[in-house]
Amino acid sequence: MANIRDLAKEAGVSVATVSRVLNGYPYVSEEKRKAVWEAAQKLQYVKNIQAVHLAKGRTAIVGVMLPYIHHPYFSAVIEGISKEALRYGYQLLLFQTNYEVERELEALERLRMKQMDGLIVCSHEVDWEAFAAYQEDGPIVLCEQVERYDFFTVYIDHYQAFVQALRYLIKKGHRRIGYCIGRMTGPNSQARAGAYQDVLREVGVLPRRQWVFDGCLFLEDGKRVMEQWIAMEERPSALLVTSDQVAAGIVLHARRIGVRIPDELAVIGFDNDPLAEMLGITTVALPHFTLGERAFRLLHHWLETGRVARKQEELPARLLVRDTA
Amino acid sequence: MANIRDLAKEAGVSVATVSRVLNGYPYVSEEKRKAVWEAAQKLQYVKNIQAVHLAKGRTAIVGVMLPYIHHPYFSAVIEGISKEALRYGYQLLLFQTNYEVERELEALERLRMKQMDGLIVCSHEVDWEAFAAYQEDGPIVLCEQVERYDFFTVYIDHYQAFVQALRYLIKKGHRRIGYCIGRMTGPNSQARAGAYQDVLREVGVLPRRQWVFDGCLFLEDGKRVMEQWIAMEERPSALLVTSDQVAAGIVLHARRIGVRIPDELAVIGFDNDPLAEMLGITTVALPHFTLGERAFRLLHHWLETGRVARKQEELPARLLVRDTA
Repeated sequence: MANIRDLAKEAGVSVATVSRVLNGYPYVSEEKRKAVWEAAQKLQYVKNIQAVHLAKGRTAIVGVMLPYIHHPYFSAVIEGISKEALRYGYQLLLFQTNYEVERELEALERLRMKQMDGLIVCSHEVDWEAFAAYQEDGPIVLCEQVERYDFFTVYIDHYQAFVQALRYLIKKGHRRIGYCIGRMTGPNSQARAGAYQDVLREVGVLPRRQWVFDGCLFLEDGKRVMEQWIAMEERPSALLVTSDQVAAGIVLHARRIGVRIPDELAVIGFDNDPLAEMLGITTVALPHFTLGERAFRLLHHWLETGRVARKQEELPARLLVRDTA
Repeated sequence: MANIRDLAKEAGVSVATVSRVLNGYPYVSEEKRKAVWEAAQKLQYVKNIQAVHLAKGRTAIVGVMLPYIHHPYFSAVIEGISKEALRYGYQLLLFQTNYEVERELEALERLRMKQMDGLIVCSHEVDWEAFAAYQEDGPIVLCEQVERYDFFTVYIDHYQAFVQALRYLIKKGHRRIGYCIGRMTGPNSQARAGAYQDVLREVGVLPRRQWVFDGCLFLEDGKRVMEQWIAMEERPSALLVTSDQVAAGIVLHARRIGVRIPDELAVIGFDNDPLAEMLGITTVALPHFTLGERAFRLLHHWLETGRVARKQEELPARLLVRDTA
């Protein structure tokens, strides 16, 4: 495999010059630059990386299905996936679906057409049955708990994470508890709704539909929640907020309009975003980055060896008590 | 092309049931679910989307080269690209490079190997000469201003954006002005350094190297800058901060340690991140999402028609005055 010394020899320049040209530094003559690039092409300097994969009949591409990219949760998962993909020389083919079923099916079809070696599903709208139908076409790793099928999964136990935060609030004396969520459907959301009902029932409190705030994904949604909260006749005294970005929006808007946190409203976020740390927001730390890393590793191990130690891996969530609850 | 009615007919169920199955709703019998998925496979419900592309000898994949994903700037650009890609039925192949030249070259090699139809370069370390060497292999769109070559480019004029913010600070009476930047290399950073020197020279002030804070990308970096600032004997009275995330870190940490903004330190961010709006940070709004959209559209127009109205498109930056400067 050609290395930087071979390039220098071929181009008739120093190793330092090759390095400067490859790294785009200025102050190298036109002539030397050209010589280096010609040498790189002649010696197929980069193609060799690919050759290893191609010899195995692989594309060295892994698909990633997710609803949208521009959200801290998904970008943290992608970054975890991407870090491991980089390490093993894989590229990522992104399927941003907006939770549209046809986009999700297209990803599965591309797996069938061998345009990628495997697929990681961060979140989806389509029925599990769909994934079952494509299981023979290549490894599919789901980032959520799946009860019925024998899928590859890496997941956070969102039921337990919610239970943990709810019990903490109850111990602190809260009974009027609401929560903010990204969307009502999906297995994670259903797990949370179940935890909410189960824990409130334990202490003899009725869950209230009007204290569940839907569509909460971004910072701006926190402002909206705060405005809805202030307008309520009967207000919850505590909120679980399934995204620290939204929790930050609540806390910042509360400061602006003079609502005292946690005295008037206790707030527990989820994720452990740097913004939550900076604002002193009590949060349930969720290992999104690790989730991405582990999902890739599971897939990669299967591709390399045809077997895995275990098909299901659960990652822990941890309550970090700070100032807001 | 098979539609949802054809599926219903083939599966012997109602259109509503097909919709429920495709969208993953509960309360559909196992039997009906199975029938719908079998019908979908039999009628090649999804493959048809691909067929259109394949008939043209295309992969319907566009590559995106970027240093990292988990940063609001790049994720906003990707989201813009992705929105247009979705619209035209393209998937994105991400090359997260960490600014490593070999990763960047691998993206170019994959273009040469026709594994994608074109490449959008958000940011790079490798020399422009490298892109020139692959220009024949497929359309490459660069998201920055390029002087020497006849490349496809969509860019924000970072020189003018910096000049705008600097002149505003000078008009407000500031002379001790510093700035925070992501990295010192790269054409955008060089444009900003040029603007800094040019504008200070206009008012007869010497630029100071120790007031330039390097490696500022994330919220946490803002805290670090604030700590460095407080420890300085001679402090700048104003900072331009090339990321609103970093500006938010500065403003939030300043509040915590009792530094009055803007009286003791004026701060102007860049991007117009929702967090900047929520915190009242004066910022230079940069159209990152639009940049992504336009880059994809330029590429797509070239792929479809083999020509473009203009190869270079400049997008405007706009100062939004709020509370921090």
